[in-house]
Amino acid sequence: MLCVAIDVMGNDYGPKPAIEGVIQALKEKEFKAYLVGDKDSFAHLVPEEYEKNLVYVDTKGFISMSQQATDALKDKETSIYKAIELVRDGTCQAIVSAGHSGATMSLATLRIGRINQVLRPAIATLLPSTASRPSLMLDVGANVDCKPEHLVQFAIMGNAYAREVMGIKKPRVGLLSNGEESSKGNELTKEAYKLLKNHPNFCGNVEGGDLFDGSVDVIVCDGFNGNLVLKSIEGVGKAVTRMLKQNIKKSFLGIIGAIFMSGTFKKIKKTIDYDEYGGAPLLGIKNCTIISHGKSSPKAIKNAIFQALKFADSNINEVIEKDIAQFNSESKNA
Amino acid sequence: MLCVAIDVMGNDYGPKPAIEGVIQALKEKEFKAYLVGDKDSFAHLVPEEYEKNLVYVDTKGFISMSQQATDALKDKETSIYKAIELVRDGTCQAIVSAGHSGATMSLATLRIGRINQVLRPAIATLLPSTASRPSLMLDVGANVDCKPEHLVQFAIMGNAYAREVMGIKKPRVGLLSNGEESSKGNELTKEAYKLLKNHPNFCGNVEGGDLFDGSVDVIVCDGFNGNLVLKSIEGVGKAVTRMLKQNIKKSFLGIIGAIFMSGTFKKIKKTIDYDEYGGAPLLGIKNCTIISHGKSSPKAIKNAIFQALKFADSNINEVIEKDIAQFNSESKNA
Repeated sequence: MLCVAIDVMGNDYGPKPAIEGVIQALKEKEFKAYLVGDKDSFAHLVPEEYEKNLVYVDTKGFISMSQQATDALKDKETSIYKAIELVRDGTCQAIVSAGHSGATMSLATLRIGRINQVLRPAIATLLPSTASRPSLMLDVGANVDCKPEHLVQFAIMGNAYAREVMGIKKPRVGLLSNGEESSKGNELTKEAYKLLKNHPNFCGNVEGGDLFDGSVDVIVCDGFNGNLVLKSIEGVGKAVTRMLKQNIKKSFLGIIGAIFMSGTFKKIKKTIDYDEYGGAPLLGIKNCTIISHGKSSPKAIKNAIFQALKFADSNINEVIEKDIAQFNSESKNA
Repeated sequence: MLCVAIDVMGNDYGPKPAIEGVIQALKEKEFKAYLVGDKDSFAHLVPEEYEKNLVYVDTKGFISMSQQATDALKDKETSIYKAIELVRDGTCQAIVSAGHSGATMSLATLRIGRINQVLRPAIATLLPSTASRPSLMLDVGANVDCKPEHLVQFAIMGNAYAREVMGIKKPRVGLLSNGEESSKGNELTKEAYKLLKNHPNFCGNVEGGDLFDGSVDVIVCDGFNGNLVLKSIEGVGKAVTRMLKQNIKKSFLGIIGAIFMSGTFKKIKKTIDYDEYGGAPLLGIKNCTIISHGKSSPKAIKNAIFQALKFADSNINEVIEKDIAQFNSESKNA
């Protein structure tokens, strides 16, 4: 049975969403959850019938959002440190954390370690799309300054994830740029384009306007741009909601219309709801690390656990190692 | 009377939107329009009573969207070349073009010339906001690879435009980054942050999520990131519209609701409608260049002309020159 370490303490809303998410996940799938954190603060939340699938790893310390990622390396009594160790020593096959993402990333990189030949791990996230399936975007925050060869590896890792975990037979991989033509881009992306040209699934540049129509399955960018795009989308969402509310209130017809349309709004919300997608896998690390949003709901934690189980059950890390080695040797011979 | 050169030929939909935009503008404001282009193709569109405010500059050539920006420098018989020359020789005080933006930018930079000490001109655009006024974002496409000192100059030019043309007494200037803290950013923005720290109106980093709530009046970024953000916003807009339509069709209540809400949707559309804002000023060039979207409607052209008149009637270019000189000398002494 797969074992998943859950950092119960990191969530902005305390341990409750994590525990409820674990219980929801256990109702649907068979796995063993290692609940890492201050047992006294959450043990009473667990219904007795689930105890057989749970292991408590009691620890009082945790990393707060205001701390530096480097603090996580020093304090070995924190929930995230102990959860990472459970993966490192082979007790668990995956970790899900809604805590400090920088801390999770640093610990995963330094304690669990990178896959052979991977230069930089990358955070990948699912983007909602009007097509039948979401797209995968990486990196969305692990690496703000990148070299062309880092983007190439992100492409390889994203391609592997789309194939092995998302089940897309031949993923289309695009490079985020300011124009479709190969001549478009900044120094970084133009150089990455040249290196990626020979990748069988690379289909060129993709623009910001084509991110949500399913034109590509994997979107490659540096962590600075990935963050900008993700946050801008969130900003647009907030602004549109605000404008809708402001304007609906001003008109009686608007209020009636909004009530009639509530079913439609709910369906759209479901499509663009991050909770549906769970968390963001950290690609390039041995084993499986899923980073969830600090404001994760129980549903988001449940879906992050499902993602972790799928990841841990796949061959993705072997595929990443093989694909990178192959790409490196082909590039040398080219 | 202010004279504005209009490149009539560049628009994707032919000369009609430009001519109609000029007529709409003349109904509201007093100015002289120099209509540059193939006179035979549009003279019949002009009602006689406006002839006294029009000057025809007949030329057959024009730069198509598929040509390179550098082509514009060679062919002196194109509408954009001739329109730029009208500003260069002092006949006109401003130019409005919905044509090839790269061509307009190259010609403006090389034929009209940069303001003293300006390193790189930047394209500034107005971003819709849920606050009472839009924000100005620059650069949105002129410079894909920037140095920190370029971003500093964009901040100074944006600040000057917000004050002198938009009428904001003390604009708040923010640097687009992946986090609010000064420690956040990539190499470029972290260095720019250090240089901007002493600018009196600089208020730190701004994230993608805060672009549309009016937290800052001026948003500074390189042209690659500016393009990504603008295009992503457009992409989200398209995706949400597509999802609304798909889902409304599936439900009778949804259709009725959408009809009742049409007034609300129209009001929101007006807030986020680029036509309302006109074009994007190219800052850092002597005189005034307004770059409009290739798909500009007559209303967009009208608003671009109003923007040009306001710009040409202001002291902004003197202010930019003075502010940059002052900032440079203060930085030297610091």
